Amino acid sequence: MRMRKKPWADKEFEINTHLVTSPEENKGKWNEFFGNDNPVHIEIGCGKGRFLSTLAAQNPNINYIGIERQTQIIVLAMRKAREHDLKNLCFVNVDVKDLENYFAPSEISRIYINFCDPWPNKKKWAKKRLTHRNFLSIYERLFAESGDIHFKTDNKELFEFSLNEFSALADNGWRMSNISLDLHNSSFEGNIMTEYEEKFFNIGMPIYRLEAKYK
Amino acid sequence: MRMRKKPWADKEFEINTHLVTSPEENKGKWNEFFGNDNPVHIEIGCGKGRFLSTLAAQNPNINYIGIERQTQIIVLAMRKAREHDLKNLCFVNVDVKDLENYFAPSEISRIYINFCDPWPNKKKWAKKRLTHRNFLSIYERLFAESGDIHFKTDNKELFEFSLNEFSALADNGWRMSNISLDLHNSSFEGNIMTEYEEKFFNIGMPIYRLEAKYK
Repeated sequence: MRMRKKPWADKEFEINTHLVTSPEENKGKWNEFFGNDNPVHIEIGCGKGRFLSTLAAQNPNINYIGIERQTQIIVLAMRKAREHDLKNLCFVNVDVKDLENYFAPSEISRIYINFCDPWPNKKKWAKKRLTHRNFLSIYERLFAESGDIHFKTDNKELFEFSLNEFSALADNGWRMSNISLDLHNSSFEGNIMTEYEEKFFNIGMPIYRLEAKYK
Repeated sequence: MRMRKKPWADKEFEINTHLVTSPEENKGKWNEFFGNDNPVHIEIGCGKGRFLSTLAAQNPNINYIGIERQTQIIVLAMRKAREHDLKNLCFVNVDVKDLENYFAPSEISRIYINFCDPWPNKKKWAKKRLTHRNFLSIYERLFAESGDIHFKTDNKELFEFSLNEFSALADNGWRMSNISLDLHNSSFEGNIMTEYEEKFFNIGMPIYRLEAKYK
């Protein structure tokens, strides 16, 4: 998603304290940063931040970190966190492939991946998908002991690919559960819709979801 | 599927040698029955038998057994086997829940389940689905050492249920692969359409498929 520069963005970056500008300094010390020993959950590609700010408001005893590469989008998420004064929510403006520069093993216990880029040309781009086994290896090292992934997408091909990737790494310790091929017509409760998800829900497109626990 | 009694059925039962009328006597001795040491693959709910007779013709070095409860349907499958003189194909007219009366552990190495009854009222009927964990336990005992299941359905809810059942029993040794959410628009090669599948394919309905290896 490309967005034009917002006229208020510079001011937001100036006054907002929810962006961590040197996240590498927090590696291994995120609990110090948050000032508590609560679990840390991250969302990779948090976009405009509705999902994570809703979760953060619902769960004050969990620390949330939104990962988003695009400056003009992360600023929208930052603004939500500031306006709702969510002390358990911050953001880092980095690329997912570098996550290990910012988090020590066992520091994260859950990763949310919502509506990531499906990279539809399978052969050429499969490695860029956030559920490709190369990324799962990164998540394994980040979780170290244990952790889980909550994954949603509207893209059938990406979901199929993801089912196969998690299955293929079952011997590493991945176990899927709560697999849904039509989330909004399922018995799943407590779903928080992302901005993107709402658009697809409104036109009746099925949403796919799974959880995958590591070890 | 209910069918009227065919006028030629009685004659077919009389002349056809592909129906095993006392399958319990072959338990532990199917290789003797076939007169070779080839692997034995079964289809649970073989219906009119197109799938299995095509496979049997393609793979003379595998023995196939079709399981079908309904007499008026199995007779159609038997006729195909007779007309094509398929010596590696026979049928048993029994219920799947009694399979262990007819097969000893390790006698079967593959089970095909194609378009079985989806039993759509989940809470009440889930246990009747052929991919319910109670049935997976039966298949585990039949495979004993190892085996695999090839499963196809046009029913999204049943497929979702099956993904979750196999995932839930991953610690028993089940590993899914080749999961497809749209078989006929996938790169899968060598699919053999069942009679039922062809109808759904012709109206553009997606077909779901997975393989699950045990141990």
